[in-house]
Amino acid sequence: MSDRLSIDPAHYSSRAAGLTDRIRSRSPLVHSVTNQVVANMTANALLAIGASPAMVDIVGEAGMFAGIADGLLINLGTPAPEQRDAMREAVEGANAAGTPWVLDPVAIGTLPIRTAMARELLLARPTAIRGNASEILALAGEGSGGRGVDSADSADGAQEAALALAREHGAVVAVSGPIDLITDGVTIVRVANGHELLTKITGGGCALGSVIAAYLGVPGEESTLERVAAAHIAYEIAAERAAARADGPGSFSVFFTDELASLTSASLGDAARVHGHLLTQSEATA
Amino acid sequence: MSDRLSIDPAHYSSRAAGLTDRIRSRSPLVHSVTNQVVANMTANALLAIGASPAMVDIVGEAGMFAGIADGLLINLGTPAPEQRDAMREAVEGANAAGTPWVLDPVAIGTLPIRTAMARELLLARPTAIRGNASEILALAGEGSGGRGVDSADSADGAQEAALALAREHGAVVAVSGPIDLITDGVTIVRVANGHELLTKITGGGCALGSVIAAYLGVPGEESTLERVAAAHIAYEIAAERAAARADGPGSFSVFFTDELASLTSASLGDAARVHGHLLTQSEATA
Amino acid sequence: MSDRLSIDPAHYSSRAAGLTDRIRSRSPLVHSVTNQVVANMTANALLAIGASPAMVDIVGEAGMFAGIADGLLINLGTPAPEQRDAMREAVEGANAAGTPWVLDPVAIGTLPIRTAMARELLLARPTAIRGNASEILALAGEGSGGRGVDSADSADGAQEAALALAREHGAVVAVSGPIDLITDGVTIVRVANGHELLTKITGGGCALGSVIAAYLGVPGEESTLERVAAAHIAYEIAAERAAARADGPGSFSVFFTDELASLTSASLGDAARVHGHLLTQSEATA
Repeated sequence: MSDRLSIDPAHYSSRAAGLTDRIRSRSPLVHSVTNQVVANMTANALLAIGASPAMVDIVGEAGMFAGIADGLLINLGTPAPEQRDAMREAVEGANAAGTPWVLDPVAIGTLPIRTAMARELLLARPTAIRGNASEILALAGEGSGGRGVDSADSADGAQEAALALAREHGAVVAVSGPIDLITDGVTIVRVANGHELLTKITGGGCALGSVIAAYLGVPGEESTLERVAAAHIAYEIAAERAAARADGPGSFSVFFTDELASLTSASLGDAARVHGHLLTQSEATA
Repeated sequence: MSDRLSIDPAHYSSRAAGLTDRIRSRSPLVHSVTNQVVANMTANALLAIGASPAMVDIVGEAGMFAGIADGLLINLGTPAPEQRDAMREAVEGANAAGTPWVLDPVAIGTLPIRTAMARELLLARPTAIRGNASEILALAGEGSGGRGVDSADSADGAQEAALALAREHGAVVAVSGPIDLITDGVTIVRVANGHELLTKITGGGCALGSVIAAYLGVPGEESTLERVAAAHIAYEIAAERAAARADGPGSFSVFFTDELASLTSASLGDAARVHGHLLTQSEATA
Repeated sequence: MSDRLSIDPAHYSSRAAGLTDRIRSRSPLVHSVTNQVVANMTANALLAIGASPAMVDIVGEAGMFAGIADGLLINLGTPAPEQRDAMREAVEGANAAGTPWVLDPVAIGTLPIRTAMARELLLARPTAIRGNASEILALAGEGSGGRGVDSADSADGAQEAALALAREHGAVVAVSGPIDLITDGVTIVRVANGHELLTKITGGGCALGSVIAAYLGVPGEESTLERVAAAHIAYEIAAERAAARADGPGSFSVFFTDELASLTSASLGDAARVHGHLLTQSEATA
């Protein structure tokens, strides 16, 4: 560890606490162009954290709405042609208005249309990118792609891909896994919160993408890296608290929404399991 | 109050009770052309009250199905091009067959495509219109529109707009809020039931639109105004009962479905908080 | 009964137990091209039984993904034009790769586009077909069609239609009802498990279609008939266990997911209520 400059974990958890409170008081408008499987769960997760959700995925409206919104998610889960055009429009609107936006490249790699779409959207410079290791590897042009939405790789296995994407495209990249890896190309943050049950309900990862957009969408001095880490910390602490009471994925899902709604800055401080460090020169050039 | 002709609250709660029982015994077929975020929740709410839900939103089927159905909802939440054409077809089929139908102009105002669509559908004379204050103001050509699906205005602030819409288009207009305002242009009914948690789950308002269609879709002597008020009363009493047991929006959602399914005419009588009055001449011409 | 060759019920329950364990250990990839109302519930049911769900319903991806998947469901609930083309592509991909697939002809009969689509897909020889009695009758060219998604007929009333479909198209046909009827044209299996609450939540039947695809998608010596019966047995035993604890359809839905996730081979053995018999010559030629 001598060649790493560690960052006090309390740095991240205090930012997570402040941002979580600010979402409740500001109620950021989060525009999600997402897949039909998880739209309901995503909207409910946003409502639970105190954000205001809206799904506007038609041409002629998606662009202007992205300009009004405080944050935008583009999720490639079920990218029908109309929705693909709406995604392009939304990203253009977001970039013109300075709305931060998140790209979730669901199941790219093997599937050609969404893979091409993700590459195209990458050039529009998303504020943040989130996915599992297989998706991040595929987005960086590596790996063979996952099996559908499941990752065939661990988060740490996608570290180099995440660093490359972050540096080349100016995005904060988050790789979900038992321990999440989040980087801006200079600093690596690992979040060890969460619970396996989050992978046993559909939309566990997809809804996080919209929650990240909410954490990007409130005013404040926090960096994008701190915001993306904060979203992971808050979301995954709620998952842990829900899992402690659940009998299975059905009851977990119910308690998870309740826990997201009852998150407070106080509940985040002690429960965060987060570690950050600046890359050394040797790591940074690896 | 001397210049108002009040109507006994028991008038409305007894009609709500009778209609609620009749929905269970008749199981009206409710056709919902609605948005993908709330389709599941809507179908489950309809099943819970005893109606038979169906979502047929493709061209070539939506029109004939609206003719077979007992009630129809048109909800503008995610109006993709194919669905817009299906909406037109469904409304035409409903009008040809005499099927009552409800228009829910979700998030109109700022967003141009759904706003134009709502205006177009208004000319086809919906049986009932429901929305929040911002949406009703926008439909009447007033106000600046809400922020996405949230209302920026109170229900009473939309009273003039609701009256104007009701008179000009022959519809019963319902404005949702902490106290709902429902009018046919001559009488104003206010329903004070409900709970804030209903605004913390997605689809709380959208599903009500389909429930209204169910209350319009059973035989009986009740007026459209009485039916729309009855749907609000029953739906919102179930919400109150669920909220009393809930720890947050996740458990509220579960209990709400259970409570909708266990509503009886007996449980409605005492719990209704409803007030109706005929407009005075001065109000009516305001 | 003297002219029927009965099959020991334990035959089916032991196969259900073995297949259920194998799904947990193999996690088959189940591709569902399904309707937007039930997509979320379907994905969660698949996750709960241990399968890996994916919904890929766009042209250019659906076909190749059906080739990768272990099982495929085609559900005709909301067949928009893009999805219809994706269905054709998926079926072609599945047949080319030998992926077993299930056809669920939702609400066919009265509605012309899905009825034509079901007939077209029938010619592509689905591995299994599931529906309620009205849908199976309509697919066989009989009956007048249900009222939306509700069946107007009993499962036994569709026995001749099911036998005819099975013989003519080489599919196992399952007719859902209080007692399900499942046949390969030679043997008839009846499953008496399940609970009425399964008909009070949307997607109760639709999700079963994907669960059948999972039971078809794991390696093993079991016949298609045994697999389709096993899916019904496991799914419906979970429903019984959930119903025993539920206060209504909302809590039933939560407990049902939990029970699907905690199903074990041990819990299936005693609870199965299944009966199978070979058709006699007189029945077979009826």
